[in-house]
Amino acid sequence: MGAPLIGIDLLEPARLEQRLQETAGLSAELFTDQEIAYCDGQTSPYEHLCARFCAKEATSKALGMDGFDPLDIEVLGGGESARLALYRSAKARADELEVEVTMSLTHLPGIAGAVVLALPRRIWHQAARGSSRKSKP
Amino acid sequence: MGAPLIGIDLLEPARLEQRLQETAGLSAELFTDQEIAYCDGQTSPYEHLCARFCAKEATSKALGMDGFDPLDIEVLGGGESARLALYRSAKARADELEVEVTMSLTHLPGIAGAVVLALPRRIWHQAARGSSRKSKP
Amino acid sequence: MGAPLIGIDLLEPARLEQRLQETAGLSAELFTDQEIAYCDGQTSPYEHLCARFCAKEATSKALGMDGFDPLDIEVLGGGESARLALYRSAKARADELEVEVTMSLTHLPGIAGAVVLALPRRIWHQAARGSSRKSKP
Repeated sequence: MGAPLIGIDLLEPARLEQRLQETAGLSAELFTDQEIAYCDGQTSPYEHLCARFCAKEATSKALGMDGFDPLDIEVLGGGESARLALYRSAKARADELEVEVTMSLTHLPGIAGAVVLALPRRIWHQAARGSSRKSKP
Repeated sequence: MGAPLIGIDLLEPARLEQRLQETAGLSAELFTDQEIAYCDGQTSPYEHLCARFCAKEATSKALGMDGFDPLDIEVLGGGESARLALYRSAKARADELEVEVTMSLTHLPGIAGAVVLALPRRIWHQAARGSSRKSKP
Repeated sequence: MGAPLIGIDLLEPARLEQRLQETAGLSAELFTDQEIAYCDGQTSPYEHLCARFCAKEATSKALGMDGFDPLDIEVLGGGESARLALYRSAKARADELEVEVTMSLTHLPGIAGAVVLALPRRIWHQAARGSSRKSKP
């Protein structure tokens, strides 16, 4: 395989906030415009940004990527409907492994985290078919 | 699918303790009698309660539930044999997705957490059959 | 099954450091020579040791082991190529369950953690076959 298929990452929001404030332009290197817009609309923007950064790191770990561009992994939306979108190097790696990636986020004032699962597509699609058979006699 | 199949949640035991002490009756809204009885018997009850609360949150995330009643998700037992039981809305959602849920808990004085995995039942039962074939020629 | 197939563990590096300094010989009971050598070569040895201890605990949780010898679970290498090797009781348990284990580590000065996934071997090998078909017309 060459990929753990599971990834975890933890980071303190205060640590991310400090780095973003120290380095002009870092925000645009780490996050897409949509991610920034979503987080800016929340009560604790840095908690939400931090969870998203963890999701990018956890995705790269689950896919066994040797370095990655944070903009190749995006968290779409937020709350219960937040989900991953992969582009360029990250999409190529998921295609190579034939996996779909899903994630879960968590954040507190002191710590944020994410876990990412890479599921073989055949299993993913079997599961999807299972869940679509909703009306049974 | 509509569900991430993986869920994580982190929470500080002190934060849960404060909320439970501020709000009369909250404990009975979050935990079953059996969960409370188990945790009361431990050296650090709030660490154990906190890990259980994380398990409930992580389950709702893994199943992609849009809001949930904490009493619909119960942690049975404790230690190595702790496991999830689903009722009502949570059971209906797992049935809809055709998944089984498993979990793992962790707790320290400063932080507790849980991760939950929702496995398609077909895979789950294949694995169960695999592990029952213990005596091979 | 009898095993959650997923495991998580968190631990503060300072807590592990204190225990190792208080108890002579504890290091050799918890870590292999290779694990110690790898971590000693890092800037923050206790962060790396702590993440490895979490990986051992998380593995025992994923496999549903009732107690375990930390030396039966080893983290080989480090960084993106870190991976688990199982011996004796841990290998026997994985063989019994017919699973392969993978993991992901995370560490900060204040907290370290690991998550471990136990995948049924049939799924694992299907995934491995999938990922080896790299040249498609």
